[in-house]
Amino acid sequence: MPRVAVLRIGYRLVRDDRITTHIALVARAFGADCIYTVGGEEDLAETIRNVNKRWGGDFQVEFVDDWKKVVRQWKNSGGLVVHLTMYGLGMETVEEVQRGERNILVVVGAEKVPRELYSMADYNVAVSHQPHSEVSALAVFLDRYFKGEELKKNFRDAKMKITPSAKGKNVVEL
Amino acid sequence: MPRVAVLRIGYRLVRDDRITTHIALVARAFGADCIYTVGGEEDLAETIRNVNKRWGGDFQVEFVDDWKKVVRQWKNSGGLVVHLTMYGLGMETVEEVQRGERNILVVVGAEKVPRELYSMADYNVAVSHQPHSEVSALAVFLDRYFKGEELKKNFRDAKMKITPSAKGKNVVEL
Repeated sequence: MPRVAVLRIGYRLVRDDRITTHIALVARAFGADCIYTVGGEEDLAETIRNVNKRWGGDFQVEFVDDWKKVVRQWKNSGGLVVHLTMYGLGMETVEEVQRGERNILVVVGAEKVPRELYSMADYNVAVSHQPHSEVSALAVFLDRYFKGEELKKNFRDAKMKITPSAKGKNVVEL
Repeated sequence: MPRVAVLRIGYRLVRDDRITTHIALVARAFGADCIYTVGGEEDLAETIRNVNKRWGGDFQVEFVDDWKKVVRQWKNSGGLVVHLTMYGLGMETVEEVQRGERNILVVVGAEKVPRELYSMADYNVAVSHQPHSEVSALAVFLDRYFKGEELKKNFRDAKMKITPSAKGKNVVEL
């Protein structure tokens, strides 16, 4: 199976702390293998370690200084770079991404994104042409990319598992 | 067409300010008609007013004191109340919601949600049984609920519109 990684750029101190955590959790829950993040606090790594420990899987967080290096390495190793932006091409029109044959790096930014990213990316892809959120863009992109299969993913070595419930919380300790 | 509203509860001062803005933007971009929010700052209303002015449509924000009142009114007027929670039933299993015949109130909380909500909701629905984010849960729920049609929505009286672009930003002033 091709690998899917997420790269989060444009972090602004404090202001984006919770958003970055949400992005990392979305990446994990919706089937990505790892996240590279420029900036972000050590407690992000701690949060993800705890989530892995309880809910399973081995989703990885890597802090990076230079996002361009990550993009270049990804391209040099034959992977596709997909930048999510409201200005991009409609998701459903980008066939090479839909086919899902190559490793893919999904780049999500904050409000202001360096111009260079638009040209460095293989594809600039829009989840919607209306303003919303990098958290939702990533989730809907991954949900469509994996065609809903990501929600059936088995997270190995989980200590807890939810039994779906109509009216309450039903958590099984494994 | 049945109405879709979002109710955001469990706001915690400052900590959730940006998340609440993201939720409101997601609700708007993914086809909901309005959002009720418990707490949240006046700048949320201002942000949405500006987005409507530039990007069109008449998405509404309403600040409420008592979320239970909103839930009760919605039920009394024949609408369905759907609470998004990782503990709920898988989205694809809840047929009445899928059918989309009734007005629907989608409730999203923060980390801790009052117990009562689980029993007051007609359905507790999980977008994933893994922890992620109320922003992503709402987006994926609405994307599936509207079957992707929401992304073709015409936002009336927009001043700006994006022409999808492979490598840059192409915004048309209307």
